[in-house]
Amino acid sequence: MSDIAGPVSRLIENFRKLPGIGQKSAQRMAFFILRMEPDAVRELARSIVDMKDSVRHCSVCNNLTDIDPCHFCTEPNRNTHLLCVVEESQNILPIEATHLFKGRYHVLMGTISPLRGVGPDQLAIPSLLRRIESDQIEEIIVATNPNVEGETTALYLSKVIKPLGIRVTRLAMGLPVGGDLDYADAVTLSKALEGRRDL
Amino acid sequence: MSDIAGPVSRLIENFRKLPGIGQKSAQRMAFFILRMEPDAVRELARSIVDMKDSVRHCSVCNNLTDIDPCHFCTEPNRNTHLLCVVEESQNILPIEATHLFKGRYHVLMGTISPLRGVGPDQLAIPSLLRRIESDQIEEIIVATNPNVEGETTALYLSKVIKPLGIRVTRLAMGLPVGGDLDYADAVTLSKALEGRRDL
Repeated sequence: MSDIAGPVSRLIENFRKLPGIGQKSAQRMAFFILRMEPDAVRELARSIVDMKDSVRHCSVCNNLTDIDPCHFCTEPNRNTHLLCVVEESQNILPIEATHLFKGRYHVLMGTISPLRGVGPDQLAIPSLLRRIESDQIEEIIVATNPNVEGETTALYLSKVIKPLGIRVTRLAMGLPVGGDLDYADAVTLSKALEGRRDL
Repeated sequence: MSDIAGPVSRLIENFRKLPGIGQKSAQRMAFFILRMEPDAVRELARSIVDMKDSVRHCSVCNNLTDIDPCHFCTEPNRNTHLLCVVEESQNILPIEATHLFKGRYHVLMGTISPLRGVGPDQLAIPSLLRRIESDQIEEIIVATNPNVEGETTALYLSKVIKPLGIRVTRLAMGLPVGGDLDYADAVTLSKALEGRRDL
């Protein structure tokens, strides 16, 4: 890329390390920044460093936050006996967007994966078990991803938590709303059949 | 977006100002940065500011560069009498990638656009005319984009430069290599017909 000025190539290379950013997107972003107001460029750079410096994992639920405990853990109008377990912090966003869940969260910080050598103890499962006891949890909604690792993790959690007499539920799997039967894959359709409900 | 920690939302908002970056991409990038090594994050932020601080327009051809004149204007093995005129600096990259053009460049920094009130004098056309004389240019290859504004600009350039006795050429328009006639739009196909060559 010797045709691009050194500092531009350097930024393009750095942008390419970000997820979903290829050579063309990185170029477009870099050339766009060259046309931006200098103050806006400094603000962009500063917001990257500031975020990295100020955001930590919540000491209660592991959610990424700049205040500890995070606001989900301190909001008074949330049901403290209902926990939703997710893999990563960002999984909280789509759940909050439904406005249906009014309990608290617990972020596992990963999934059980024998292939990658990740066992239950490398995840925030011991702290989940402590919370279940101390917060008198009544139900755990397991909202791990609907894939092999998410399923494995959900099964493990149900195996260790159910014996404590606590209800463990899993998000339903089936056809996406607005979807089309013709385009549904066989696995999703099997899940939809298995999970069919009486009308 | 009050569900996301303040510093994360701030970065997401800043990323969304970049071209081609929507809410989801900005989120993914921000959460990825939270998992990156602190040194890599600082390097990313620094490369943004460094690029903005060090990159300027070449005083000869307006290409974006951190050395002035830029390396295209000083490379000794380039034909100094052949100029390729482009709209923006980044348009040089695909042309260099062909390895077919060995002249110098001139960046107009935009296109003539009566709709947006951009006339020839707001572009680097006066400096192009001066270069034509001082560098004894023999041919101008107009490589503006194949759209209305690019065409208007190309026609204007040919109108003012041809009378000086200089050859003015335009990139060919036609079917993309590897393309399919069935998927060609009517305008491109018309150009391909008009530009047909004897076999």
